[in-house]
Amino acid sequence: MSFTVSLPVRFADCDPAGIAYFPRLLALLDAAIEDWTAATLAVDRSVMHGARRLGLPTVRLETDFHVPARLGTTLEWEVCIDRVGQTSLALVVVARHGNLAFLTARLVQVLTCLDTMRPKPWPADWRDRLTQESDCAAPP
Amino acid sequence: MSFTVSLPVRFADCDPAGIAYFPRLLALLDAAIEDWTAATLAVDRSVMHGARRLGLPTVRLETDFHVPARLGTTLEWEVCIDRVGQTSLALVVVARHGNLAFLTARLVQVLTCLDTMRPKPWPADWRDRLTQESDCAAPP
Amino acid sequence: MSFTVSLPVRFADCDPAGIAYFPRLLALLDAAIEDWTAATLAVDRSVMHGARRLGLPTVRLETDFHVPARLGTTLEWEVCIDRVGQTSLALVVVARHGNLAFLTARLVQVLTCLDTMRPKPWPADWRDRLTQESDCAAPP
Amino acid sequence: MSFTVSLPVRFADCDPAGIAYFPRLLALLDAAIEDWTAATLAVDRSVMHGARRLGLPTVRLETDFHVPARLGTTLEWEVCIDRVGQTSLALVVVARHGNLAFLTARLVQVLTCLDTMRPKPWPADWRDRLTQESDCAAPP
Repeated sequence: MSFTVSLPVRFADCDPAGIAYFPRLLALLDAAIEDWTAATLAVDRSVMHGARRLGLPTVRLETDFHVPARLGTTLEWEVCIDRVGQTSLALVVVARHGNLAFLTARLVQVLTCLDTMRPKPWPADWRDRLTQESDCAAPP
Repeated sequence: MSFTVSLPVRFADCDPAGIAYFPRLLALLDAAIEDWTAATLAVDRSVMHGARRLGLPTVRLETDFHVPARLGTTLEWEVCIDRVGQTSLALVVVARHGNLAFLTARLVQVLTCLDTMRPKPWPADWRDRLTQESDCAAPP
Repeated sequence: MSFTVSLPVRFADCDPAGIAYFPRLLALLDAAIEDWTAATLAVDRSVMHGARRLGLPTVRLETDFHVPARLGTTLEWEVCIDRVGQTSLALVVVARHGNLAFLTARLVQVLTCLDTMRPKPWPADWRDRLTQESDCAAPP
Repeated sequence: MSFTVSLPVRFADCDPAGIAYFPRLLALLDAAIEDWTAATLAVDRSVMHGARRLGLPTVRLETDFHVPARLGTTLEWEVCIDRVGQTSLALVVVARHGNLAFLTARLVQVLTCLDTMRPKPWPADWRDRLTQESDCAAPP
């Protein structure tokens, strides 16, 4: 099942060359994952961090920037599960406008206890939710 | 020859989990590369973008976040050339504090004409400077 | 006539104290003004900056932060014209959630030619559009 | 006694108009205050937030942007105490390059307990340190 969120490339995201600045594009990527996490795990980050003391730090990120994104372009961010590990999650994210892919990212996040900063196995209900989502179409 | 720049992990760089937020860490990575570029090519970005109409967009970025970086940690960013292509440049950047490596990044930048947004071969003097730098020690 | 845009306080906007970091809140304020400008002047910023070579730098900003905004709160940003000058524009922006006002900002922007960086009188059609909008209810 | 910190206007701080983006300038302002706080109170923010559970949220900010700051300009940020209240602190910050002032900000911060989010009177030793600092020359 596919999850997509639309986010505009804003003035604040662009550099003096007039194109999206890559660390800002990666903040948009993270915003898309934030929305995906809330929808998929049915928990928002304030509860995850606050009451449950869990975080999802990114431990590996691989990004190809295919085409520069210009001010005013609305990108569709598609988030897809690649693999669910014991404590980790591999995601593939593609940002598109129309048929054009601007960015493809593969990233690994690890569920982490914020008090000990150590990896933690997925709670059963979250694992079930992730497994149901993971039979999505293979990303490009 | 090794190039290193010290940058603190500031309040602005940290997230509600109390550790450096990855897109902000990647903005620090880019700041280190900004300083390295100015030192290595002997041109600052305002001249590069303004008078010379050249940019160095990142087309590929691969990052491993080994250890979460906490507020107040000063990271030493070491920038090293991996390979100089016709129009491109592959860099390896490691952020350390003492003996501990927090982040290793490999990235590819392409010299780009800002008017046409097309790749451009390195000017001879820049290529010479890059080649002189590129016999640095192999990164981890 | 009132203009409102909804923007969530995201993970990226929050600091280690778990509340929205003020420079990030002001980037959300600017995002709201970006949307308001496009709607009111019927021109988006890429055309304004690109083809028309005009900018709207902020020359004065006065902000009261009434209540800390927490991760996950969706703020409604209301943008209202206070005064239209020869080359300038005074705006009042209030960010609310329900009946609670989190932030009130008063700012002055000056229409500026990007080539000369000097103030420029409003084009007649933009001035007309701004004048039509400016009979909005007095802000708090 | 005067406190000054030098911070460059980086590529990351500039917008498509080629000048420093105001929310990013205000993040530099906050970085200057971060360094000033650590030097003046002799406590860094990680200890302040972590062990002592205290924060210094900004409740009011008034900024005049006198001149646009361009990519590559190094700004000298001077931080000066205007007034020390029971629980609050009024600061004046000026960012200069040579004789030219780019920005003047007046801001009020309130010492806040992060657990209750309520104002807290200054500890005696911090108040002493602030009072010693506050006989600085009047800002412009």
